[in-house]
Amino acid sequence: MTTLEILKQAKASAPELAMLNTDTKNRALLAMADALEEYSDKILEANAIDVEAAKASIGEVMTDRLRLTTERIKGMADGIREVANLPDPTGSVIDKVERPNGLVINKIRVPMGVVAIIYESRPNVTSDAAALALKSGNVCVLRGGKEAYKSSYAIVSAMRMGLKSIGLPETFINMLEDTTRAGANELMTATEYVDLLIPRGGAGLIRACVENAKVPCIQTGTGICHIYVDKDADLDMALDIIENAKTSRPSVCNAEEACLVNRAIAKDFLPRLKKRLADNRSVNPVELRLDREAAEIIDGTPAGADDFDTEFLDYILAVAIVEDVKEAVLHISKHSTHHSEAIITSNEKTANYFTAAVDSSSVYVNASTRFTDGGEFGLGCEIGISTQKLHARGPMGLEELTTYKYVIRGNGQIR
Amino acid sequence: MTTLEILKQAKASAPELAMLNTDTKNRALLAMADALEEYSDKILEANAIDVEAAKASIGEVMTDRLRLTTERIKGMADGIREVANLPDPTGSVIDKVERPNGLVINKIRVPMGVVAIIYESRPNVTSDAAALALKSGNVCVLRGGKEAYKSSYAIVSAMRMGLKSIGLPETFINMLEDTTRAGANELMTATEYVDLLIPRGGAGLIRACVENAKVPCIQTGTGICHIYVDKDADLDMALDIIENAKTSRPSVCNAEEACLVNRAIAKDFLPRLKKRLADNRSVNPVELRLDREAAEIIDGTPAGADDFDTEFLDYILAVAIVEDVKEAVLHISKHSTHHSEAIITSNEKTANYFTAAVDSSSVYVNASTRFTDGGEFGLGCEIGISTQKLHARGPMGLEELTTYKYVIRGNGQIR
Repeated sequence: MTTLEILKQAKASAPELAMLNTDTKNRALLAMADALEEYSDKILEANAIDVEAAKASIGEVMTDRLRLTTERIKGMADGIREVANLPDPTGSVIDKVERPNGLVINKIRVPMGVVAIIYESRPNVTSDAAALALKSGNVCVLRGGKEAYKSSYAIVSAMRMGLKSIGLPETFINMLEDTTRAGANELMTATEYVDLLIPRGGAGLIRACVENAKVPCIQTGTGICHIYVDKDADLDMALDIIENAKTSRPSVCNAEEACLVNRAIAKDFLPRLKKRLADNRSVNPVELRLDREAAEIIDGTPAGADDFDTEFLDYILAVAIVEDVKEAVLHISKHSTHHSEAIITSNEKTANYFTAAVDSSSVYVNASTRFTDGGEFGLGCEIGISTQKLHARGPMGLEELTTYKYVIRGNGQIR
Repeated sequence: MTTLEILKQAKASAPELAMLNTDTKNRALLAMADALEEYSDKILEANAIDVEAAKASIGEVMTDRLRLTTERIKGMADGIREVANLPDPTGSVIDKVERPNGLVINKIRVPMGVVAIIYESRPNVTSDAAALALKSGNVCVLRGGKEAYKSSYAIVSAMRMGLKSIGLPETFINMLEDTTRAGANELMTATEYVDLLIPRGGAGLIRACVENAKVPCIQTGTGICHIYVDKDADLDMALDIIENAKTSRPSVCNAEEACLVNRAIAKDFLPRLKKRLADNRSVNPVELRLDREAAEIIDGTPAGADDFDTEFLDYILAVAIVEDVKEAVLHISKHSTHHSEAIITSNEKTANYFTAAVDSSSVYVNASTRFTDGGEFGLGCEIGISTQKLHARGPMGLEELTTYKYVIRGNGQIR
């Protein structure tokens, strides 16, 4: 089917899905999960073809991301079952007001309609995104990377069989067949059919979406996250937090990329930082990229022009000295992607200034930036982390996949 | 100054404004209002030049929109004073959660940063938008129509004098000097500087923004609003509501443009509708554009291909017959701009189906669509009416000019 045909089908299915009750949506999710396991063999077969082709074109490391096993499929099915257990975000009354003229205005949470997700080569995003969309009452249009096409197609087919098995339309879950760049652009500009577009992937994909999308699009993911070590910091705590934020999973968007150190403690702190992150780590030592002043205190790579504007996603940390919290905030405002930043300090006043002045989705006091995550924030799940300010900010759960409408009841009021 | 210089200035001023307390913002608003009245003469002088030039180029009717009087300026000042009396939307804790690991996560309402407003030739939008932006903690960048340039410039200058008089930076309120289309495009694509763009004006302006904007933009205003008269309607009420929705102010976006009538009552209702809207109105009779079936019952203009997709903004109403509420909903889903729709019925079940199935910002039962308005909804004010689903829907007040951030406090938590 052409992209346009698929989009039309998705749009036409949206009202029916939007009006399903919670029980039916949960039954659909459980049927989708069961079907994933039932069709496990077919999914693995399709995946084997993708993996074989990918080895030649994208190399071993990337290929690993797309490889499925029976266990991984079971994990995907269990992920869908977890979504069934989450509360339904739609239908709730956000606000209710009775006006002097007798009008009763209810502000009610409702689905978006059609949610499109553009992603890369991890097949599990397919089931994950479909489940979150369905639970929030949205028809989804999935557009995955071409390396994982056959796998995603098999996963979608299984989930659709699940829907069919309980008498629901397969068109609640849709996948684009066109994996070209032109196909992505068609999706990004389909203002008549797409209510929300969420890109999930690397900086390049997200930039392409933000630049080309004419449909409402949420900018997600890119994280140049800072940790500022204040003069009133507990330095042991600072070391624990920085090692965690930098090294526990450097490839993710909430990992630390730059460390700002208060001048007053730099001479004391930097040698300890170097010891903890570089000298003491025989596996994956962190490369420190130092500004001029830091380089006078410890050894490391001199920071280049771009090092404070780079999402390394690697065992690399840019380090700069700042005069005080104000200079730290100023540095962050210049270099941050507004994802997550932290201050380490025991001074309440300094902490308050930092949290008020830093303009990022998540601002931490004495904790690791790694906590910026739907699960860790108690949202139960996550479709992405918004780095923009419109609609949603930070981790996006089910509620962030909804909008609202006003329902107004009267008895003949005119104006 | 160039657009880029103005945008840089605006962005640089945003943190200071965001951190002002409510009292200071209110003092600023009162000073702005006083200054408008103080510099009334200068504003009228500038306005006289605009009006003179406009007469030649845009005609008498449009010119009237841009004409100011001492009274109108007083009205603008009073409008600002009313905004000072509204509650401050920022700083409130939207949600607070303590996680099992001891992290305390506060979701806090904060300003957007820099809000840009592109509008047409009504000078009062200048003071209105500046006041709403300031109260919500946002620096504004205003870009008005070139016909009102001198008037808007004088209004902005006065408001900036007001800010200055109490020691606040003038750069909290900014106005672009470049009124060309290229200037508007520069604003729409300034992703580094603009956090939110709101177009206020006609369909052409809004389309241009939605199509060209790379900054987050809210689609406002266009309203092809429907009223469906059900078979269980109180027909007297239906006539009152339809006359109000169509004729009380046909030039606004919440006016009715199309009327759908249940087949079962059409023969009874349509002659009464024609009498009320056309025959009985010696001044401004409404032209009825009838679908084939309606034309068999009453006289009127046969509806053309586009009549059900046109925002007439005039004394014209498209009329169609439908089988039932389901067909009404289907018609609306095809032709509506998702602004406001109403059903007239005394059947609770039919009303519930309509409110659930219609995908518009505001869905009415037995009331006029004309109530879709920030003031009427109890928001106290309005910067526009969103017809999109992302971020805000329906009337946008002060809260809709804000976003949120998560502030997380810990004592050394790592992940």
